[in-house]
Amino acid sequence: MENHTKLYDVGVIGLGVMGKNLALNIADNQYHVAAFDLDNVKVQGVLEQEQSDRVNSKQADQPLRVHGCNNISELLSSLDKPRIIVLSVPAGAPVDGVCSTLIEAGIEQNDIVIDTGNSLWTDTVEREARYADKFTFFSSAVSGGEMGARFGPSLMPSGNIKAWDRIKPIWEAIAAKVDADTGLPIERQEPGNPVTEGEPCTTYIGPAGAGHYVKMVHNGIEYADMQLICEAYQLLSDGFQMSANEIADLFERWNQGSLNSYLMEISAEVLRQADPISGKPLVEMILDKAGQKGTGLWTAVSSLQIGCPAPTIAEAVYARAVSTQKTQRVALSQLLSGPAAVKPSDEERHTFIVQLESALYCAKIASYAQGFQLMAMTAKERNWTLDFAEIAKIWRAGCIIRATFLQSITQAYQAAATTGIELENLLMAETFSQALSLKQLDWRKAVSTAVLKGIPAPCIGSALAYYDSYRCETLPANLLQGQRDYFGAHTFERTDKPAGEKYHLNWSDAKREINKV
Amino acid sequence: MENHTKLYDVGVIGLGVMGKNLALNIADNQYHVAAFDLDNVKVQGVLEQEQSDRVNSKQADQPLRVHGCNNISELLSSLDKPRIIVLSVPAGAPVDGVCSTLIEAGIEQNDIVIDTGNSLWTDTVEREARYADKFTFFSSAVSGGEMGARFGPSLMPSGNIKAWDRIKPIWEAIAAKVDADTGLPIERQEPGNPVTEGEPCTTYIGPAGAGHYVKMVHNGIEYADMQLICEAYQLLSDGFQMSANEIADLFERWNQGSLNSYLMEISAEVLRQADPISGKPLVEMILDKAGQKGTGLWTAVSSLQIGCPAPTIAEAVYARAVSTQKTQRVALSQLLSGPAAVKPSDEERHTFIVQLESALYCAKIASYAQGFQLMAMTAKERNWTLDFAEIAKIWRAGCIIRATFLQSITQAYQAAATTGIELENLLMAETFSQALSLKQLDWRKAVSTAVLKGIPAPCIGSALAYYDSYRCETLPANLLQGQRDYFGAHTFERTDKPAGEKYHLNWSDAKREINKV
Repeated sequence: MENHTKLYDVGVIGLGVMGKNLALNIADNQYHVAAFDLDNVKVQGVLEQEQSDRVNSKQADQPLRVHGCNNISELLSSLDKPRIIVLSVPAGAPVDGVCSTLIEAGIEQNDIVIDTGNSLWTDTVEREARYADKFTFFSSAVSGGEMGARFGPSLMPSGNIKAWDRIKPIWEAIAAKVDADTGLPIERQEPGNPVTEGEPCTTYIGPAGAGHYVKMVHNGIEYADMQLICEAYQLLSDGFQMSANEIADLFERWNQGSLNSYLMEISAEVLRQADPISGKPLVEMILDKAGQKGTGLWTAVSSLQIGCPAPTIAEAVYARAVSTQKTQRVALSQLLSGPAAVKPSDEERHTFIVQLESALYCAKIASYAQGFQLMAMTAKERNWTLDFAEIAKIWRAGCIIRATFLQSITQAYQAAATTGIELENLLMAETFSQALSLKQLDWRKAVSTAVLKGIPAPCIGSALAYYDSYRCETLPANLLQGQRDYFGAHTFERTDKPAGEKYHLNWSDAKREINKV
Repeated sequence: MENHTKLYDVGVIGLGVMGKNLALNIADNQYHVAAFDLDNVKVQGVLEQEQSDRVNSKQADQPLRVHGCNNISELLSSLDKPRIIVLSVPAGAPVDGVCSTLIEAGIEQNDIVIDTGNSLWTDTVEREARYADKFTFFSSAVSGGEMGARFGPSLMPSGNIKAWDRIKPIWEAIAAKVDADTGLPIERQEPGNPVTEGEPCTTYIGPAGAGHYVKMVHNGIEYADMQLICEAYQLLSDGFQMSANEIADLFERWNQGSLNSYLMEISAEVLRQADPISGKPLVEMILDKAGQKGTGLWTAVSSLQIGCPAPTIAEAVYARAVSTQKTQRVALSQLLSGPAAVKPSDEERHTFIVQLESALYCAKIASYAQGFQLMAMTAKERNWTLDFAEIAKIWRAGCIIRATFLQSITQAYQAAATTGIELENLLMAETFSQALSLKQLDWRKAVSTAVLKGIPAPCIGSALAYYDSYRCETLPANLLQGQRDYFGAHTFERTDKPAGEKYHLNWSDAKREINKV
């Protein structure tokens, strides 16, 4: 190890599914990787995987680039200085555990540790400060799951900007790539043959925590996207008697148009899938209880705390919660009445499909508007400068919500930047306000149909209420402020007086005088 | 002070609006009160108020019962032992500040301190433990605002049960009262002449923190109640061209029926109120930006964290958030299209009013169902035994959501108790499931009308989606679990296999085998 040429470029600690695939991805991009896991079986696993990849891809001539380490000290002494170490361990205590071990083993001030786990963004903020005098704690959220990590994830790095200069070439190499002209992902899942052309799906997000915050909101939007597709499925299935295969056909068609997205694509595939056991459509054999890992609800909580309207994201989280209460639903399905079922005609079905496509597109715009406004409001509070055009860009490939739609968001922010006016809400972008204005009547008809047929569409419906709320120059919050002044003397402002002036009416007195407070 | 007869029964620390009125209320009920505030002007204020109350109510023969103290030591030495001290100071650090001073001044182990402020319930849990070896820290949430505190609030006490035995007579004396037969509040706002008959609106809620938690959920329900009324107002006003006065007439009428509530009553009054300055309806001069103090969003956050569907409460919080973004709304009102306005006929208006009354009633049931389920789920997690029949009872008077409706909730829980089956969701109660089944068609028509007319009704609409979700034996979460298994290998359960068995389909392999995980 004395010889510089033998030292490795990047350390990877934690070789679970994500860490292992990140290590192989980094190695595919010509970097030499020193890898460690507390579980030696996992260390052997990544070495064997690299070997079998070489065999399977007929690249036996390519050198192996991953080196297994027996402990953290060995990992540190295997790495070229200043070191770059990628951490892929479970969020929470394990991150601090590894950091302590690294300090004991002699990590140095100029070394960089990149946390790629699902850490809560506020933990990241604390850690950067806590470890500042020992090493540079940096973080990068990773989206794209197992396959993303292996062949190109979307990467959301944040922290010390000088550290980013050193991480950047590696991150740009391993990230998913987009064709600059079409905005479409360049997909190639071949070991040893990474995509090297196109625009990489990574950009420096901002100070510590910003990357994980942006990833959290990405997941909140993902919850809404998934639920919107599920509502469409139920409407078509329960409301218009379409089979799983017919809906798969429709989703495939939609995936060619403005609703194109990875989630639409895989939804069609899931609906098409036959169950190997029963032969029926697999979807009909899957239990309707949705799991969740927390990032969706964190997004909704953050929106409530900062006062950003994000009802469509919250409704998506609640929809998962209702799904888990299956026993209650089964009981209530016997107790609560709905409208009488009506057999739809082919023409009605055809009309509805057209309306529903518009409704999904509009609701999608509304939920992205919510997510982007939430990031903007938090950025303001935290004093981050987020580049939303770039954030939308790096979501075009590698991550779960990847879609051509994101290209329009990038363009909307770029167009706004040329005018110098901040795009406070995506609904203000011409491209979206025009699309919404054009499609809103169909959206209304689709929601009305759902309501009258008794089929729940909480996200499509709440998105429309969100749209209609923003269309209101005047909302009934005037009555609400009157109520609050009545029972709690909370005061109100007046439309004919300067902003900030507070008034109170003496409701309990017969004279009911009004006073400036 | 050596003479026992000269010692006072109850101490009150903090004489802001709430503390002052609680002190006067306690004194009206024959207790002798020692009162202290850091601001001596406030101490004098409460003494003068008691004197002027005597004069105004022609009860000069009644003795004065409030004694002002110059400091906490004097307050402690003025009180009969073991002491009972009511704390009415701002939530947060001031509570601990007073507790420290009390310890320094020699408060004793058997003394009780009752925090009546708007403390976050988790702080209360911590404080009970922190002060346990010095004195008994008890808490009681207070609802009903200024007038409630003075003449009868709804009180939600929680903490050490032995302390409650000593507090109970005072709390039952000062609480709002309900006529046991009618379930209606006994209202009388006369100094020196408290209501002594009827059922008091207080009951022991549970261990430390439970009372403040229940009060928090009360406020979340209050947010939904207020927003529902506001949505009705906007629909009638913008959608059916009714004047503020006409809507006041209608709300007064509704207040005589199943929609009877304090909030409906005061909404009619607010709508009826002319602006002393412009002569126009006051509501039209109030700026439509809603304020909030946090308890509504805390409720929504708690529901998300525990996984309880509470979309109608969350939508009410978001509606306030949208209202504050007035500049955005004004800009968007020019950019986003809605349906063409149609002048409604008298018949259409009449029909809609009938549908809307049903819609409000149903949405109200749904939002109360959400609040009560949230309390039940949290109680389970915290190991509290909450008596929901009693909780609904003590909300029938004194608090903001008081309504005859709460009588039905009490009866529903009492009926469930006789069967021994837990009422997991209020929608399961016969009285509500029948009402909902009867009114659901009208509810749908009202929501459909709002949607087609382009008037936002986020709470009425989300409540219907909530209702329809619980009517579904099968929700589209099966597709969602398919999506999650596809992109994240999150696995799924099968309808034909035992609960808990997890399956994964190997989506990236051509064979697509299914495996038990």
